[in-house]
Amino acid sequence: MQLGLIGLGRMGGNMRERLRAAGHEVIGFDPRPEVSDVNSLDALAKALNAPRVVWVMVPSGEPTRSTVTALSEVLEPGDLVIDGGNSRYTDDGPNAALLDAKGIGYLDVGVSGGIWGKANGYGLMAGGSPEHVERAMPIFDALRPEGPREEGFVHAGPVGAGHFSKMVHNGIEYGLMQAYAEGFELLSAAELITNVPGVLQAWSRGTVVRSWLLDLLVNALKDDPTLAALEDYVEDSGEGRWTIEEAIKHAVPLPVISAALFARFASRQESSPAMKAVAALRHQFGGHAVKTATGPSGVPGEHAGPSSGTGSTQG
Amino acid sequence: MQLGLIGLGRMGGNMRERLRAAGHEVIGFDPRPEVSDVNSLDALAKALNAPRVVWVMVPSGEPTRSTVTALSEVLEPGDLVIDGGNSRYTDDGPNAALLDAKGIGYLDVGVSGGIWGKANGYGLMAGGSPEHVERAMPIFDALRPEGPREEGFVHAGPVGAGHFSKMVHNGIEYGLMQAYAEGFELLSAAELITNVPGVLQAWSRGTVVRSWLLDLLVNALKDDPTLAALEDYVEDSGEGRWTIEEAIKHAVPLPVISAALFARFASRQESSPAMKAVAALRHQFGGHAVKTATGPSGVPGEHAGPSSGTGSTQG
Amino acid sequence: MQLGLIGLGRMGGNMRERLRAAGHEVIGFDPRPEVSDVNSLDALAKALNAPRVVWVMVPSGEPTRSTVTALSEVLEPGDLVIDGGNSRYTDDGPNAALLDAKGIGYLDVGVSGGIWGKANGYGLMAGGSPEHVERAMPIFDALRPEGPREEGFVHAGPVGAGHFSKMVHNGIEYGLMQAYAEGFELLSAAELITNVPGVLQAWSRGTVVRSWLLDLLVNALKDDPTLAALEDYVEDSGEGRWTIEEAIKHAVPLPVISAALFARFASRQESSPAMKAVAALRHQFGGHAVKTATGPSGVPGEHAGPSSGTGSTQG
Amino acid sequence: MQLGLIGLGRMGGNMRERLRAAGHEVIGFDPRPEVSDVNSLDALAKALNAPRVVWVMVPSGEPTRSTVTALSEVLEPGDLVIDGGNSRYTDDGPNAALLDAKGIGYLDVGVSGGIWGKANGYGLMAGGSPEHVERAMPIFDALRPEGPREEGFVHAGPVGAGHFSKMVHNGIEYGLMQAYAEGFELLSAAELITNVPGVLQAWSRGTVVRSWLLDLLVNALKDDPTLAALEDYVEDSGEGRWTIEEAIKHAVPLPVISAALFARFASRQESSPAMKAVAALRHQFGGHAVKTATGPSGVPGEHAGPSSGTGSTQG
Repeated sequence: MQLGLIGLGRMGGNMRERLRAAGHEVIGFDPRPEVSDVNSLDALAKALNAPRVVWVMVPSGEPTRSTVTALSEVLEPGDLVIDGGNSRYTDDGPNAALLDAKGIGYLDVGVSGGIWGKANGYGLMAGGSPEHVERAMPIFDALRPEGPREEGFVHAGPVGAGHFSKMVHNGIEYGLMQAYAEGFELLSAAELITNVPGVLQAWSRGTVVRSWLLDLLVNALKDDPTLAALEDYVEDSGEGRWTIEEAIKHAVPLPVISAALFARFASRQESSPAMKAVAALRHQFGGHAVKTATGPSGVPGEHAGPSSGTGSTQG
Repeated sequence: MQLGLIGLGRMGGNMRERLRAAGHEVIGFDPRPEVSDVNSLDALAKALNAPRVVWVMVPSGEPTRSTVTALSEVLEPGDLVIDGGNSRYTDDGPNAALLDAKGIGYLDVGVSGGIWGKANGYGLMAGGSPEHVERAMPIFDALRPEGPREEGFVHAGPVGAGHFSKMVHNGIEYGLMQAYAEGFELLSAAELITNVPGVLQAWSRGTVVRSWLLDLLVNALKDDPTLAALEDYVEDSGEGRWTIEEAIKHAVPLPVISAALFARFASRQESSPAMKAVAALRHQFGGHAVKTATGPSGVPGEHAGPSSGTGSTQG
Repeated sequence: MQLGLIGLGRMGGNMRERLRAAGHEVIGFDPRPEVSDVNSLDALAKALNAPRVVWVMVPSGEPTRSTVTALSEVLEPGDLVIDGGNSRYTDDGPNAALLDAKGIGYLDVGVSGGIWGKANGYGLMAGGSPEHVERAMPIFDALRPEGPREEGFVHAGPVGAGHFSKMVHNGIEYGLMQAYAEGFELLSAAELITNVPGVLQAWSRGTVVRSWLLDLLVNALKDDPTLAALEDYVEDSGEGRWTIEEAIKHAVPLPVISAALFARFASRQESSPAMKAVAALRHQFGGHAVKTATGPSGVPGEHAGPSSGTGSTQG
Repeated sequence: MQLGLIGLGRMGGNMRERLRAAGHEVIGFDPRPEVSDVNSLDALAKALNAPRVVWVMVPSGEPTRSTVTALSEVLEPGDLVIDGGNSRYTDDGPNAALLDAKGIGYLDVGVSGGIWGKANGYGLMAGGSPEHVERAMPIFDALRPEGPREEGFVHAGPVGAGHFSKMVHNGIEYGLMQAYAEGFELLSAAELITNVPGVLQAWSRGTVVRSWLLDLLVNALKDDPTLAALEDYVEDSGEGRWTIEEAIKHAVPLPVISAALFARFASRQESSPAMKAVAALRHQFGGHAVKTATGPSGVPGEHAGPSSGTGSTQG
């Protein structure tokens, strides 16, 4: 079928290729003329036969919202807009309402797979009406991995359900990554283990912890067995935060996912005000004089020789 | 090659079948005559040609230790004992020393794969000397999954390194399971998601969170989409505890794995003394009289109508 | 000085008494005629001499917002409204703007101390302009505990800073309560400790952990040494949730406060979907047949006799 | 009464002064001649009248164990040894048995209060027989704070119960410190709060979170309102680790105390291997080429302009 595709970055560009390889006609728009098939949204609308299906694949937040608004002005009743970006699910209701007022349909689709999706296919989670989902199914079938449809695609619920599912997917991902990372660190700390990358690689098949993320970590360790070249600095792109906020709204305890998120926050701090405060409290136990006399630890007994008495019995 | 195998439970019995299917001669011993090939450890030793290789696959702790002790009395110099059970790695040094005094070699091997290993192969992590590892390699090659050896087997280091690796593997596993579980709960709490099992199944291919554990959870949800038949009661078999203890020894922070372990502890409590104490403290904020007057919450403002004043501004 | 006070519940009623005892003239309004000094907001406004100071002490959220709106209609330019309830700090800006449009001033004040504040005084954190703070200072001085002003009162910053400070105060409180509660549980679990309430009471003086919360826990244990009469069910009144949300906004890691909040969420669940999912995964390790054969644990090796082989080596 | 006191460091030296001020005769021994009253353990034994009471106040572990062993050789049946140091409670049984074989009694006493104990008194938790506790009570009464005995002293149980109680005390302390520290950090991160030290100081009286630890933090902020002079590096002296290990033994969930311990571990790392691993995984999502092309973040979409497409939809 025919599809308009807005946003031809790493994700959108790859998706265009995968869709074309599957025999679909894709007309892509991107502000960079060297990758774009048309030179404006208006031209995109004109190039598509009504009723149109237009997939939006631009960054979440304002860029997606403004693109949807712009589309509401160039599309016609009966057209269908799909937001495949990483929008917060709370954006979907307003987007759908805006389009619905013009008679235009809306689907939100969470897309997972990253740069590997072009070759492997993308995991897709859709929110919206059954009719709209049905209409876009040829596109979903081309984007998702080969195999049974239900193993790479789900109609998760009404508008918002696709992005909500993708948000939870990413929250889980934070926890999974942190679990492997903690295990990697403990293996690395143990002198007993002389082949840490080999241990992780040996988990690739047969074990309970085998996964695609493990494969990626094994890959990373092939080039750099101790990750010496990397900074211990980890960004987050928002979905983990939204996941915790959603958990708070529903009173769902998420100790693991929150711990993973907070570990990322901590990784980005040059200095931790909280741990300064704990250090300050430990200093106080030892009295003000201790600060200058014995240095930062403030628990002189830890530095004193064993026969010269307990300096402090505090923690 | 020829192998003695002690312990023919679910794991040992399956391993015997997989090894035999690969062409190895396995003589198994188990106290249950109906599954055993010989009727005593002594008979096992006699039935094997020296130098022998004997794989111990019995529960960890005392059963394994006493089996190793018994083997030290029936085996001969030049023989090799492999502990493939879930022993704590700190048991390996003493076991190896006991056998070494008799001229008997020792390997510790962590085995992952559960009941599925018979068909899929087992992930193996070995600790011991290179010579001993080399000697047992035909067995390892038969037990591990098909594919490159290094994707299902590792010589992780000296004696103890195999069980240490398996311990960390299981610690990671706790974190992974809890991450999926938290995501499942949040999806289940959101009315927006009308097809929770479908969302998890759609992650099976292409997504970042795809894994064997995810496949197992999808399987479980096929029979029981809300897990209504299950208790929220989760045992632990020790490796998670050992992982945390090891992290404490090495001063490695494991916030995710510890949170997963503690969630299991909490799941088994009929009543939480800690949360009773928090409830008691909240009662105290409201004063003793509140307990009987307004019931357990103890924060009368929460029960009062909105126009009748703030009862308490405490949390 | 003269003060209008709206909301004569447990907090407002006690504050009226404390203020009157300090010599201030308090005219209180509450919809319950038996405690109210006037019978309407309009009557309250008429009973006060301009320029008026009116303290709002009603539940947070809609009740407070509607009270402020109503006040904007009965007060006059030059009057001052103080929200002393537990409002979220994000409500303060809109409230202040609404009143400012009528020439009416606004302060937000976090109030801590609960039912004990009437006798001990209340800790106060104020947000707003220095002029408004100065104007209300006689009221603050009467409400706060005896001693230096700065040990019971702070002008924390502009509008919103008072409630923000109170939010963080309550977040800390969650962490403190949980820390004591965890220690109580561990003491209670150890057979070695024959006098758990006595241990906590012995911490009342001299120790590093002495605090008012500890005193309250000691009190609670006097009546019920094992807290047998209490449910392990803990409400939360919102500030803990807001604290985490604010931490997420600022990328501040709060592992302890979030753990305390999640423990409360978990305490209120009859059954944990997440732990059902973990249980389901453990079942899957053992194969479907295990469920019915050996019951919920699903790790048959744990039930098997030590000599009959390792059932599973998974966690 | 008469007391031998071994170890005249900061704690022991202060205790000698407090005991003498209360009218007790204290003969102290320390290897540093300038502070010692006698020049050997033997001389100490000779200087005391039988039956003797000897308080050991040296660092925990080997120093305390070797001191107890040495005392078992110079003391006589009927004497009593008190270990007031920060020993792990598992040391107490062996120490008591060693002495009991010589007819010498043993008490273990947890001591809290730090450098402030000399003036304020020390919180004391004792383990041992009622007879031994009774015999040392004059010493306990002199060391503990003024006020009711039960508010500064407890006979917590048999041998080991004193140090166990102190261990839990310190575990709680970790949680309390971290809770205040997290609140301090969040207040510091919010531009709205213009007077962070003032907010904490205003909690000193009347509030729910008032405590001695809060007073210490207020003190620390008086000298250095942003703690700019401090490193965010926090030692731990062992009790927190023991607390977690004990919780694991008893299957008691301690999410808050463990989070506080792990935050200390993390504070001491120059670089976190775990967070490097998470960073590596995020790189992998973006493909190998990304590493060099766009730098460490590896999620090109985050760097791309909003109109040029979604680079990745992963977290």
